[in-house]
Amino acid sequence: MTAAEKTVTAAVLIIGNEILSGRTQDVNLNFLARELGALGIRVREARVVPDVEEEIVAAVNHCRRRYDLVFTTGGIGPTHDDITSPSIAKAFGVEWVRNPEAVALLARHYENGMLNEARLRMATVPKGARLIDNPVSTAPGFEMENVYVLAGVPSIMRAMFDGLKPRLPGGKAVTSRTVSTYLGEGTIAEALGRLQDRFPALEVGSYPFFRRGKFGTSLVIRGTDAASLDRAAEGLRALIREHGAEPIEGDVE
Amino acid sequence: MTAAEKTVTAAVLIIGNEILSGRTQDVNLNFLARELGALGIRVREARVVPDVEEEIVAAVNHCRRRYDLVFTTGGIGPTHDDITSPSIAKAFGVEWVRNPEAVALLARHYENGMLNEARLRMATVPKGARLIDNPVSTAPGFEMENVYVLAGVPSIMRAMFDGLKPRLPGGKAVTSRTVSTYLGEGTIAEALGRLQDRFPALEVGSYPFFRRGKFGTSLVIRGTDAASLDRAAEGLRALIREHGAEPIEGDVE
Repeated sequence: MTAAEKTVTAAVLIIGNEILSGRTQDVNLNFLARELGALGIRVREARVVPDVEEEIVAAVNHCRRRYDLVFTTGGIGPTHDDITSPSIAKAFGVEWVRNPEAVALLARHYENGMLNEARLRMATVPKGARLIDNPVSTAPGFEMENVYVLAGVPSIMRAMFDGLKPRLPGGKAVTSRTVSTYLGEGTIAEALGRLQDRFPALEVGSYPFFRRGKFGTSLVIRGTDAASLDRAAEGLRALIREHGAEPIEGDVE
Repeated sequence: MTAAEKTVTAAVLIIGNEILSGRTQDVNLNFLARELGALGIRVREARVVPDVEEEIVAAVNHCRRRYDLVFTTGGIGPTHDDITSPSIAKAFGVEWVRNPEAVALLARHYENGMLNEARLRMATVPKGARLIDNPVSTAPGFEMENVYVLAGVPSIMRAMFDGLKPRLPGGKAVTSRTVSTYLGEGTIAEALGRLQDRFPALEVGSYPFFRRGKFGTSLVIRGTDAASLDRAAEGLRALIREHGAEPIEGDVE
């Protein structure tokens, strides 16, 4: 198996009480899932973890051993509830140390007197970590072995991710084919199961929708081999016609 | 401790490859977190789990032992990738059996010949489960001990939850006070940490925002005791004034 054929796996940890209380709607998982998928990195699991040290340590240690890459968002600001960074030091069993490069960045960013102890926490990272650039608000993220620690604010997280992207180890890109139809998913379920059996290397998903007063189903095939994807999509169109309906290319908007 | 004083905890499991691939933005966790919070049930953890039996079994068994209640969304339709229901039977070590009440519901809903084997899977539940009404599209959810199994389509999930609500064991309601200010969170971080120390039973959260060209911070205190919440909110206003700014009640829109 060559490097490009290997499946690269990832987990995403969304850290923050505000997601679990419902105050904030998370949008970071969706962004990361799409971006990583395009790089050939498959997100296999995601967790929303509260701002509790032992929970963060347990989730990071579980995921970093099980998946190739781990991405965390949230909890790297200056306040008492921002405990992601020291928790990750604890997960790796290393010291949590002030990073001179990060201190220099913050010192340039904050005016005289503004760089207090609380803000200096944002320049403190697990020993051995490499900084991740934050072009929006300066305070950096960091990577520690296979764990990438990003901000929780979506605009900042995205900017950090964009800078990080070129150095992520990608896999074979996962692409998809989507065919929709105004048939209930129960009507085609059995034929769909047989199609899935014919293409075990692909993932056949079925998603019901309701548009223009009618129920229908979007069928999505995902995989890495373009020829198989095309054959499976042809199979989808055929099974829709066999059930007396017309296949519609893509999603119904 | 009386029943009303007990903290009732919950976990939410979002089941579905489409969330992990980024095809679909989850909105069910946010809905459940808010609704459960209002009932005094605190969501302590959430996971996004793929449509893989062993992953669902592991997540359900971990969470049902650790939290008072577990809510799952997704994977209860008629297609081959809808495996939540048999996976939950497996997690509990019980048979997956056809439920006569559910069959009767589906038989009334589907016209002649439409109730095929695939749709009858939606009438098959873990032995001992109690049905949860689905006023939108008939196929029911179910509860098995402390695990509540809901649809993934948000409108259906919400309708199921509304029907279920009166029989959920609530705790002491968690309420909050929000005070905002145009101060960076780093400026008040230290004073905020001291306020958190003064009110260990409350949860003090700090959320930066950017509005009208200015950075600011929303401070949210959550807890169950109204008098403590009021005192802590007064403390927040005082610490904002001490830093030369004006407290703004609520969030800045």
